[in-house]
Amino acid sequence: MERVVMKFGGTSVGTSDRIRASAARVADEAAKGHAVAVVVSAMAGETDRLLELAGAHGGALGQVETDVVLTAGEQVSAALMALELGARGLKAQSFLGWQARIETQGPPGSSRISALDAAPVLAALEQGIIPVMAGYQGIGPDNRLRTLGRGGSDLSAVALAAALGARCDIYTDVDGVYTTDPRIEPRARRIPAISYDEMLELAAQGAKVLQTRSAEMAKARGVRLRVLSSFSNDPDAEGTEVVDADLISERRIVSGVAYARDQARIGLLGVSDQPQAAAEVFGALADAEIGIDMIVQGRSRDAGTVNIEFTVDRRDLHAALDVIDSAASGSGARDIVHETGLAKVSIVGIGLNRRADVARILFRALGEKNIAVKVIATSEIKISVLIANESVELAVRALHSAYGLDAAG
Amino acid sequence: MERVVMKFGGTSVGTSDRIRASAARVADEAAKGHAVAVVVSAMAGETDRLLELAGAHGGALGQVETDVVLTAGEQVSAALMALELGARGLKAQSFLGWQARIETQGPPGSSRISALDAAPVLAALEQGIIPVMAGYQGIGPDNRLRTLGRGGSDLSAVALAAALGARCDIYTDVDGVYTTDPRIEPRARRIPAISYDEMLELAAQGAKVLQTRSAEMAKARGVRLRVLSSFSNDPDAEGTEVVDADLISERRIVSGVAYARDQARIGLLGVSDQPQAAAEVFGALADAEIGIDMIVQGRSRDAGTVNIEFTVDRRDLHAALDVIDSAASGSGARDIVHETGLAKVSIVGIGLNRRADVARILFRALGEKNIAVKVIATSEIKISVLIANESVELAVRALHSAYGLDAAG
Repeated sequence: MERVVMKFGGTSVGTSDRIRASAARVADEAAKGHAVAVVVSAMAGETDRLLELAGAHGGALGQVETDVVLTAGEQVSAALMALELGARGLKAQSFLGWQARIETQGPPGSSRISALDAAPVLAALEQGIIPVMAGYQGIGPDNRLRTLGRGGSDLSAVALAAALGARCDIYTDVDGVYTTDPRIEPRARRIPAISYDEMLELAAQGAKVLQTRSAEMAKARGVRLRVLSSFSNDPDAEGTEVVDADLISERRIVSGVAYARDQARIGLLGVSDQPQAAAEVFGALADAEIGIDMIVQGRSRDAGTVNIEFTVDRRDLHAALDVIDSAASGSGARDIVHETGLAKVSIVGIGLNRRADVARILFRALGEKNIAVKVIATSEIKISVLIANESVELAVRALHSAYGLDAAG
Repeated sequence: MERVVMKFGGTSVGTSDRIRASAARVADEAAKGHAVAVVVSAMAGETDRLLELAGAHGGALGQVETDVVLTAGEQVSAALMALELGARGLKAQSFLGWQARIETQGPPGSSRISALDAAPVLAALEQGIIPVMAGYQGIGPDNRLRTLGRGGSDLSAVALAAALGARCDIYTDVDGVYTTDPRIEPRARRIPAISYDEMLELAAQGAKVLQTRSAEMAKARGVRLRVLSSFSNDPDAEGTEVVDADLISERRIVSGVAYARDQARIGLLGVSDQPQAAAEVFGALADAEIGIDMIVQGRSRDAGTVNIEFTVDRRDLHAALDVIDSAASGSGARDIVHETGLAKVSIVGIGLNRRADVARILFRALGEKNIAVKVIATSEIKISVLIANESVELAVRALHSAYGLDAAG
């Protein structure tokens, strides 16, 4: 009996009608003779509503209690889905984070799953019960509730699938992973199959369809992953499979173009060229859980010093500057500068590292549109450029076209 | 160090402002040097919203999952209160039903507390942490969440107070227990002190300020109970103390007038006069968890048979008739009739049983207003009459005045 984890995102359980439609898909899958487990997000908008409630009482100061508030969202949608499955004559049972024994570590608000004891869920499956697990939540070492960060329900689903040896189908409001955001480029195409690494980079560079850590975990645990639409009439005919790179037959240089708006650039000018100086700053930022990106180090006007630049999310800028103000004294930076109103546009593809003209195509495409590149950062399978926020759409369309991703006709 | 359990109802945590005001009261109490534990209801309106969501998915068919939905309400308000106390510089921690180890038995939706292990809450108190317990919830024998029925947060508070040997202050949107509903009779007076038994009867007969089972438990466990307003500037100066009867100095016949609208009367006509017949019917109703009230048995036109009449809540009428249709065949009732549009008005007082003219006053007062009494039922400390729904206000005011409860001037 094949095991399937079906994960439904916020819009797929956003209303009573959507819960009914998603429950119908679960019923279809169960009717095929599969052993089905379900993972749900909170109803669309609910997490924001709860976050606002917590914010009114100094939520950020008490992240553990904020997590207790937030987990209520998935608790409700899991129980509603179990109710709806029950109303359809199926046996179903909700499992909250503490009942599914999802242990987490790390800071509240963005904990990571450290262990998932599948025994309770397996016991339900063996009794013919469909377990409906509340996504996004687990318990911390103090036996209190924790959340896994935005998009964490995907992670819950992949972790459960890995523990069960199951296939993982992620149902969302789009019918798969696209070469870029179709709201910006109508000629974007659905990618039928993509490698774990590309998926990971696309997610990391701003594509919102699947959370980075989920792709990472799917790769590490060998979980067969699909991204499907819960709105489509025939989701099996559509969707994107996330698989090992060598299983992808289509050879292409670039798989997709991702973007992330509202980035900020921070420059530490005239820092000591001894690596300890940079290590101190980045260590302090890491301790403060501030994600940094696109690090470049360049020549300074003063001997024995360098300029270090990196980007952070705009909303982390002030926290980052605070951390640097304390830490950077040790590094002796001559000056600390920052710039906002920036965006990151990235091309991702497993073929990138094999093609020498990739960078030329990139600069030519952006140059033709007079888009200035402020920073560039590369990895094996991606190139990111930092540009002005206002040029995002133009850059995405130009790169989508330049790398031959536009749909024919 | 005196221990105090402070319980805040739905309106007292209904908005961020109300949560702040209630948190300020907790801070005041803690500043007096008391060891304070808090119990909260869901934010006003939240339980109804969640119940409606569950209802859209056949909630009544899956009462255990409905309970999982409903408990989210108190989970959120408990964490918000803990956040707000934290923002005020106090140490506080939320305790959900499964964390406070509140074990329950009985049907989901109206479970009763069978055990409360105070150890986790006590451990918090001993570390100077204010425990904020989610009311209305516990866990069942299957280790899944359960709710305690409407008003169940009062029960949570009394049970916690009993376990801690604490005083229990119930903060609500009225400043105490009144001689009757002030919305119906503006001359209603606050009762400074009332006996457990009277409180229990008033609650059972429809007064909404405190749940019946809470008064019962407070009496059984000797918990000092106060009902206070969280809206008043000086709640200590107001409120109602619920105490042993012999601690009440004021001697009065009737303490209050309660009412419950939307009652239905069911009549089983021509039932065998052998007690087994009635036992079968009432047993089946009890098995179906349908509360029955005001049972009267009268003469039937046929020899060897009796007429049995009783009342149920209007919303239980159809369920009750279904149960009777199956069960009553054995009792051989000649006919089953029912009537709706009825209300119950009750007078409650520990002096009732000492005064012979109580019934005369009642019939005279109702007779003067031409209010027909359909059924009358009495106990040691209460008399209830069943009348037409439309006469409730008139009857309440007439009885309030007849028993000398109207406020002077």
